[in-house]
Amino acid sequence: MASPEIEALTNALARLPGLGPRSARRAVLHLLKRRETTLAPLLSALAAVNERLETCGVCGNVDTSNPCAICADPRRDLRSLCVVEEVADLWALDRSRLFPGKFHVLGGRLSALEGVRPEDLAIDGLVRRIEAGGIDEVVLAMNATLEGQTTAHYVAERIERFPVRVTQLAHGLPVGGELDYLDDGTLAQALRARRPVA
Amino acid sequence: MASPEIEALTNALARLPGLGPRSARRAVLHLLKRRETTLAPLLSALAAVNERLETCGVCGNVDTSNPCAICADPRRDLRSLCVVEEVADLWALDRSRLFPGKFHVLGGRLSALEGVRPEDLAIDGLVRRIEAGGIDEVVLAMNATLEGQTTAHYVAERIERFPVRVTQLAHGLPVGGELDYLDDGTLAQALRARRPVA
Repeated sequence: MASPEIEALTNALARLPGLGPRSARRAVLHLLKRRETTLAPLLSALAAVNERLETCGVCGNVDTSNPCAICADPRRDLRSLCVVEEVADLWALDRSRLFPGKFHVLGGRLSALEGVRPEDLAIDGLVRRIEAGGIDEVVLAMNATLEGQTTAHYVAERIERFPVRVTQLAHGLPVGGELDYLDDGTLAQALRARRPVA
Repeated sequence: MASPEIEALTNALARLPGLGPRSARRAVLHLLKRRETTLAPLLSALAAVNERLETCGVCGNVDTSNPCAICADPRRDLRSLCVVEEVADLWALDRSRLFPGKFHVLGGRLSALEGVRPEDLAIDGLVRRIEAGGIDEVVLAMNATLEGQTTAHYVAERIERFPVRVTQLAHGLPVGGELDYLDDGTLAQALRARRPVA
């Protein structure tokens, strides 16, 4: 029989998205078979994350400092604020180095199905940041999904009373996208938002 | 940008079977979002496995003691030895409580594709255990796959010079199996090994 230590590890891994009980068990066996090359690095990486990382009290980013490196960076444009659903979205936008301003992580999206309500997201914190002043533009960078767009509409409504410009990421053809393979929704958005050729 | 701690954890998780770079990143975000309920238990379970578990020097099982609980159990029948590919197979057979003897874990299966040769498996250790005497029967409990059966044939050849009975798990209809849905290979095995009705 597998020992209780193995059962506990299997259960902890099975709770990760993308792994079920069977694949978690397979992962545990993989870890046990190659302890030096897999178990030890995973353990130390996990311990480092657990010890050193914290959530930024200003924007919700995850970093080794609080406020995070982005919030503490004086070269960042304080006047534009980009609102995203998850920390991963912040990282994706920051990787592109195209947005010079600050960020705000909501920590999810409104979802009737998953029972996520406005008070479960960091919307009050966003309102307070805008209320404090100094922000000219709020970019709503939610996912182009039904839930992402619902969240964007809700946030837009919550902040419409402030004198800030509220914008949204453009929808349309992705770079390299072929018309023939695109869904009708994207095509419709691209057509509706068509622009004069420069 | 994601911090180096997060990159390291993502890379360590991505090396697990069943997780790729993207799902590993998703798992890391899941861990960061629910630190108390997911990250902390995973960390302590991993640390416990790393500290307490060792591989049994006799049979290759993984347990908190060496020799393992099965090898140390005096009620086990020393005369029968069941050879399996992986520790998971040992656990599966032991869960069923149908095999009263001891086990021997090969640590894999012969595979030209994956470059697994006989010297990569614990076959020499198996030969030494049989050579030491006291064993009447060796049950080859490899998977019913091409590689498992190749391994079984190879092991059978390596131990044919010893005065032990070498047996193999029966192939045939799984319990609850319907003829119509079974592959031809299983059907052929079941027909070839047909037995008189009691």
